Amino acid sequence: MKTMKTTKTMSKQFSIGLDFGSSSVRCLIIDVVNGDEYGVDVFNYPSGEEGVLTDPDNHLVARQNPRDFIDGLIQTCRNALKEATSKDDFTVEQIVGIGIDATGSTPIPVDTDLTPLAFQEAFKDNLNAQAWMWKDHSAVDEAEKISELAEANCPDCLAKCGGTFSSEWLFSKIWHCLNCDRDVFNAAYAWIEFADFIPAMLGGVKSLDDLKINICSAGHKAMYNDDWGGYPSADFLSLLDPLIADLMERYPKKAVSIDNIAAHLSNEWSETLGLPAGLPIAVGAIDAHLGAVGAGVSPGRMVKVIGTSTCDMLVGDGTVEDIPGVCGIVEGSIIPGLTAIEAGQSAVGDIFNWFVKNICKGDNELFSELSEEAERLEPGESGLMALDWQNGNRCILIDARLSGLIVGMNLHTSQAEIYRALIEATAFGSKAIIDRIEEYGVEINEIICCGGIAEKSPLFMQIYADVLNKTMRISASSQTCALGSAIAGAVVAGVYDSVQDAQENICAFKDLEYKPIADHNEKYQKLYILYKELHDSFGVKGSHFDHSKLMKELMRLKN
Amino acid sequence: MKTMKTTKTMSKQFSIGLDFGSSSVRCLIIDVVNGDEYGVDVFNYPSGEEGVLTDPDNHLVARQNPRDFIDGLIQTCRNALKEATSKDDFTVEQIVGIGIDATGSTPIPVDTDLTPLAFQEAFKDNLNAQAWMWKDHSAVDEAEKISELAEANCPDCLAKCGGTFSSEWLFSKIWHCLNCDRDVFNAAYAWIEFADFIPAMLGGVKSLDDLKINICSAGHKAMYNDDWGGYPSADFLSLLDPLIADLMERYPKKAVSIDNIAAHLSNEWSETLGLPAGLPIAVGAIDAHLGAVGAGVSPGRMVKVIGTSTCDMLVGDGTVEDIPGVCGIVEGSIIPGLTAIEAGQSAVGDIFNWFVKNICKGDNELFSELSEEAERLEPGESGLMALDWQNGNRCILIDARLSGLIVGMNLHTSQAEIYRALIEATAFGSKAIIDRIEEYGVEINEIICCGGIAEKSPLFMQIYADVLNKTMRISASSQTCALGSAIAGAVVAGVYDSVQDAQENICAFKDLEYKPIADHNEKYQKLYILYKELHDSFGVKGSHFDHSKLMKELMRLKN
Repeated sequence: MKTMKTTKTMSKQFSIGLDFGSSSVRCLIIDVVNGDEYGVDVFNYPSGEEGVLTDPDNHLVARQNPRDFIDGLIQTCRNALKEATSKDDFTVEQIVGIGIDATGSTPIPVDTDLTPLAFQEAFKDNLNAQAWMWKDHSAVDEAEKISELAEANCPDCLAKCGGTFSSEWLFSKIWHCLNCDRDVFNAAYAWIEFADFIPAMLGGVKSLDDLKINICSAGHKAMYNDDWGGYPSADFLSLLDPLIADLMERYPKKAVSIDNIAAHLSNEWSETLGLPAGLPIAVGAIDAHLGAVGAGVSPGRMVKVIGTSTCDMLVGDGTVEDIPGVCGIVEGSIIPGLTAIEAGQSAVGDIFNWFVKNICKGDNELFSELSEEAERLEPGESGLMALDWQNGNRCILIDARLSGLIVGMNLHTSQAEIYRALIEATAFGSKAIIDRIEEYGVEINEIICCGGIAEKSPLFMQIYADVLNKTMRISASSQTCALGSAIAGAVVAGVYDSVQDAQENICAFKDLEYKPIADHNEKYQKLYILYKELHDSFGVKGSHFDHSKLMKELMRLKN
Repeated sequence: MKTMKTTKTMSKQFSIGLDFGSSSVRCLIIDVVNGDEYGVDVFNYPSGEEGVLTDPDNHLVARQNPRDFIDGLIQTCRNALKEATSKDDFTVEQIVGIGIDATGSTPIPVDTDLTPLAFQEAFKDNLNAQAWMWKDHSAVDEAEKISELAEANCPDCLAKCGGTFSSEWLFSKIWHCLNCDRDVFNAAYAWIEFADFIPAMLGGVKSLDDLKINICSAGHKAMYNDDWGGYPSADFLSLLDPLIADLMERYPKKAVSIDNIAAHLSNEWSETLGLPAGLPIAVGAIDAHLGAVGAGVSPGRMVKVIGTSTCDMLVGDGTVEDIPGVCGIVEGSIIPGLTAIEAGQSAVGDIFNWFVKNICKGDNELFSELSEEAERLEPGESGLMALDWQNGNRCILIDARLSGLIVGMNLHTSQAEIYRALIEATAFGSKAIIDRIEEYGVEINEIICCGGIAEKSPLFMQIYADVLNKTMRISASSQTCALGSAIAGAVVAGVYDSVQDAQENICAFKDLEYKPIADHNEKYQKLYILYKELHDSFGVKGSHFDHSKLMKELMRLKN
């Protein structure tokens, strides 16, 4: 990539990418020709624990204060602009577009003019009136029922989202609110995805009729598909509750991809942010999906966004079969015109954080110590095996009620051995996903990683290369989501004809590659058989295993 | 108990109990009439890690330096005597007998005059020439083969020791030495159990022909049974290796119980220790078995010795069926004339130590903190379930190659939750043993506990009461093993007609009792179903389970 195309001579143009992540928002200003950064700023959500509002009585709850999103938007935009303005060849008038990504499914209950209920005095302290963060799993019961209902009444809908409807997704959350807090449910005129809320707000959109829906959230998290005319039918939604059918009845019918304009920057927000009024704002997408764009996803080249959880993002050339156990197969949700496959793991970095912080009571220094010690271990040497389900299993089992497991401990088992086993478990979890996708004919030649862990942990990267038996590369940009958003901004501004053209110019990889070590891969193949045995045994209904050899086999591989 | 019988008027008499534990030796001097302590001293073995010599390349190895035993014997005897002598009504001439217990199976390779090979210059640094500690599991392969051979050729032998021959036991260890260190094997004229070595040494016994063999070690750890004429036949032992048959051919043929005299104190040792020459020394027994005597074991009253591992000790009234999965059923190994059942768990305190020290990197203070926090949790509240096999499973699976397992973790799981789950796991492990024994018609009405954990941890005791649904009591003496040994000393001195008579006078319980809480027991019954599912699935060959509901059931019980 990065083969510079000859572009017509023009004065510099810039695009803004806004990336609303799980704990912070980031604003990035780039030169649209080559992606050079002109300004960047980050704002950490101040509410709750690292931006997450929790319920001490229910650890499945994870909410966010929408006020944090707006405060962060304003601060980061202003600071990034200030930084850019300090450069000689930048003026604010050269900015041509804005792109936006946000976590999802993170629906926000809003009133008729699309203002969050959380901003009303009556609801400001009500957890259920806040943004329902993607990783909120309080709707496990509803998710299970939706899966059953869809299985019986709308199997196609279910097939496109991997065969199981998740508690992380839109209808589970809306239904759970209906079941647990009727006041909030009744007060909500609509539930708007985070990635639609920001563009609408910036564009001064005050009516649901004018709202542009992004295909990414709709397709991956709400069973939207043009094949059956958009969202699931009112008949189907009535099976959940007629009130949910009513709610969706007034919703916009058509969802579109990031090469569409969601709105133009309103005068009010133009003044607040110090940006030209009328700037085109691209339709949003989920952070990981625009991260995939920014990281250079293309057919055969999977992007893995590694953070507290991971997203695996692919685009398929031509027709893609339904693949059970992935999060979604949606045309145009990453790159317009190509079919996107999203998969992922509900906890990766979170598992390491849990172990180091909750169990070892350690800090960042301990991470380094454990990594160093774990790096000296051979595959299988610890005799340990773990399942990476501390936050449930997003793919390929799509089951939030699963939990973590570690087996093989003896009286000498050390912190570092468990730490390595947990990394290996997430790598095995990733292999389960990749194997499944490849079984259905989608080619995966290499993996481009982004996120802090990929950059900071050679141990993690090498284990993944060895387990997956694939070359692991790292995106050159450390903020691929914001970069992907800025690409969308450049595309809706008309600088490029397509997202791919923009990627060609803007995306790049680091020189460092992690290649599989044959001997390690061989050992991991043996260990993976045991992982898969545990995976299926504890995760797949109706599977029967004789585990009586498992501990002995771990001990044999250890010795 | 402790109903004082009218005893004939006599000047005070004293007995010495020597207790050789896993990491220390203890000498106790008691008044034979009521068990009052006149002197006590403890010596920690100085070699290795807390007295254990380990092999960095093989964590299964656990050896001990026999020199530590002798140094400890001399120091503790002299110090206990000094303390007793400071009392008005004590003189050394009033001592009437000595009893001895030691860990087992802890065989010591010796030369023709019964001196440990470890005392020879050539072998002093050779791990294989030291005492092979009970918890040495290096002979797992040999144990498995012995079980197979016994299954095919001597099923009765196997049935008496629970259906599986353990890597902790005599022939596994001898055979492993033959396989891994021919020099030591060839140099060893015999392998003498720790509990036989000390009485023989104190009695100046210099020939294998004069050695008295204790029925406890022989019966529980070496398939000895009078029904088939003692040790397994030469034909059988030749199947292991003809050299082992040769070795046992020269061994004494008859094993006896603690009411027999092993030897009389030699002049040499009389001088060294400052004790009357010619004192009768009782035949020894394994520490836990004499602990059971000291704790007051009787039909219906099980004694649980709780330490790094646990021993469950029972005596049966009348005929006792063969019970698969216990460590041994041996007539006279605890109380002469009654059939003893020994069972146990290979790690209990060791598991808590592992977690707190290795994983949490904590100290004694952390034990208190975790206990306090864990005490506030309800049964099932953590959503966790563990298997207590960090050091293999001694009963009822008798399989050293099993390992630990924890399931049910989420991203909020805390140290205290895991700590409690580990205690619960050991309680469930204990229930598996007790259920098995009761299935075979042996009555268990209450449990008398001894060991530091029983005294220090109300949390542990209450969880056990709730899981086992039995009243848990604590022995009044905190040194029941030494007390049991002193009882044996009093019996061979002729003070009592029987061990039971001595127990009647000497044994007592603390006032504090732990009674099952009905609501807790009900919850634990549900959790035990899940424990047993994991237990059988990972521990029993040919068992097939569908675990796909297990994590969900744990979550349901949690919520």
